[in-house]
Amino acid sequence: MKVFNFNAGPAMLPTSVMERAQKEFCDYHGTGCGILEHSHRGKDFQAVLDHTNQNIRDVFGVSDAYDIVYIQGGASMQFAMIPMNLMNTGAADYVDTGTWSSKAMKEAKLFGEVRVAAQSKDTKYDHIPAFDTWKLSDDASYVHITSNNTIYGTQYQDFPTTKAPLIADMSSDIMSRRVDVSKFGMIYAGAQKNLGPSGLALVIIRRDLVARTPEKVPTMLKYATYTENNSLYNTPPTFGIYMIGLVTDWIKEVGGLAELEKVNDAKAALLYQAIDDSNGFYSTPVKKCSRSKMNVVFRLPTEELEAKFLELVKANGMIGLKGHRSVGGMRASIYNAMPMEGVEKLVTLMNEFRKNN
Amino acid sequence: MKVFNFNAGPAMLPTSVMERAQKEFCDYHGTGCGILEHSHRGKDFQAVLDHTNQNIRDVFGVSDAYDIVYIQGGASMQFAMIPMNLMNTGAADYVDTGTWSSKAMKEAKLFGEVRVAAQSKDTKYDHIPAFDTWKLSDDASYVHITSNNTIYGTQYQDFPTTKAPLIADMSSDIMSRRVDVSKFGMIYAGAQKNLGPSGLALVIIRRDLVARTPEKVPTMLKYATYTENNSLYNTPPTFGIYMIGLVTDWIKEVGGLAELEKVNDAKAALLYQAIDDSNGFYSTPVKKCSRSKMNVVFRLPTEELEAKFLELVKANGMIGLKGHRSVGGMRASIYNAMPMEGVEKLVTLMNEFRKNN
Repeated sequence: MKVFNFNAGPAMLPTSVMERAQKEFCDYHGTGCGILEHSHRGKDFQAVLDHTNQNIRDVFGVSDAYDIVYIQGGASMQFAMIPMNLMNTGAADYVDTGTWSSKAMKEAKLFGEVRVAAQSKDTKYDHIPAFDTWKLSDDASYVHITSNNTIYGTQYQDFPTTKAPLIADMSSDIMSRRVDVSKFGMIYAGAQKNLGPSGLALVIIRRDLVARTPEKVPTMLKYATYTENNSLYNTPPTFGIYMIGLVTDWIKEVGGLAELEKVNDAKAALLYQAIDDSNGFYSTPVKKCSRSKMNVVFRLPTEELEAKFLELVKANGMIGLKGHRSVGGMRASIYNAMPMEGVEKLVTLMNEFRKNN
Repeated sequence: MKVFNFNAGPAMLPTSVMERAQKEFCDYHGTGCGILEHSHRGKDFQAVLDHTNQNIRDVFGVSDAYDIVYIQGGASMQFAMIPMNLMNTGAADYVDTGTWSSKAMKEAKLFGEVRVAAQSKDTKYDHIPAFDTWKLSDDASYVHITSNNTIYGTQYQDFPTTKAPLIADMSSDIMSRRVDVSKFGMIYAGAQKNLGPSGLALVIIRRDLVARTPEKVPTMLKYATYTENNSLYNTPPTFGIYMIGLVTDWIKEVGGLAELEKVNDAKAALLYQAIDDSNGFYSTPVKKCSRSKMNVVFRLPTEELEAKFLELVKANGMIGLKGHRSVGGMRASIYNAMPMEGVEKLVTLMNEFRKNN
């Protein structure tokens, strides 16, 4: 049986990408060894790195004003590196829209003053606060947001224009839609949802910001170490970068972000419709204006029915649908690699289950 | 033509490991998706993590007094994390035996006083200083050494007993021989030589040391974050951990470290003999007492002959033999995965080349 993997991350990758990586796993382009066995200083890996960088520029629309680097430690390491490097005024504005925003704020507090410009904590993170309610401060080093909230199922539908550089954690929706990169000072994303395997964060940083870093920051925690050495100061996670290269190849093949955005819109619309049309059998706590197209969270009338539903979907080859342990219920993560077929199959089961229960 | 990969790292992995990883790349144990697509919180990856941890305990002889964790950023990140977490007296002893020791010292200086207990810098890092010449200080937080020096081709033949916890960077010789782990406070190693793909460091740390960390260290840079959460505070590099599991499976299959040590001894002996018996055609700057069994560095009479030799070996399917850019010459990295056959082939070519030039 074909398995559909709705995990929130690490998540499924496009089938053709996995098959290509498998095919050349032991013998990369006739070199007699796998890409992960190649030196990071050799011409074969250099070509992979250059290709991946260029793909990201092409697909995501990243201008020369930005550097593209790969940093180990995931988004969680960025929560610390951002204030360590960029909080040059001693204060920064943060918008608190869930667990990941809060974690980013916790690390930033070690380095300076964290000002909550807006939050939805008071309503259990059920929406993204409207931009006109944000209280941005004049001397903030930057404004930090979380573009998609994996656990609570909310997502920014667009982005504000800010005076201080806007920094976005896009771990769970990067390259799922078109974004005007020029609005941002920095965009970062753990790779393990839309980009590749876990073990690195993609960091897109405006060149002028890199100079902010204070002197006494350790080498591996300075952005300049990565930007000045094209991610090759030390051995980078070569296999992860290679996989991002394959995934961005695939994005180009399927028509780029304009096309992916259409498919992602359609997938999410189908799922939310099944919820909205269920007469309350399925329900989502997320306000309509902030619904995530990547992580659709919903509940059933009782926990017993939820457990029963989870068994049914599993028996039908759909895994990873259990909600995050902090909120319970269901979560369907429908990143780029999830085909429409998987969502259709889930919706069919949801409708059947509702009729039978 | 079969290719023998003498790269210093990322390096070749055992053929059977690469083939097994390839076979189950898209469908891990019949789950319908690859291990790198599995959630790090699911039972399949949990089993991989537990298995890998146990393998390391079994193979390397790690007692319950130590925690085993996987930290992103390679050994270079450890250069900063060690002083950040463990330099509780404000000073530490370092033995400087080459580039990597120096880099570790540079980061430590950001956090306290670095005392050079011994060094071989004055003789171009051609040996490991004898233990009875070391000047260890009474109030050092720890003693830091580099067990094998990839660039200069030297290696500790045994280890001293120290009052302060001994911390060893074993990136390039971990699990290549038997080691008495109980002599150490901490052992760490970038994975990309003897253990698996690049993108993580294996850290084996004595439990009592973890409590030393000062309060204001960022979450992702605290050892306790990893030890208290079994490396699962955030998403770990799941594929890398899986690969270390396969590599340690392979070590068990071939008879454990006692057996690998014999093979590694024999491989190195063969290569050094070819150098020693060449009447000075091949020469190594490394003193006999400190010769590395992992990275054999040697020179030819002229740079022209070195270039010619590199062309010859490449034409014969041997790659990665060029020495590090900082020292020139040749470097044959003969980690665990390099079979005797590869070394024999290299030695045969060396002997032929010498006769013809």
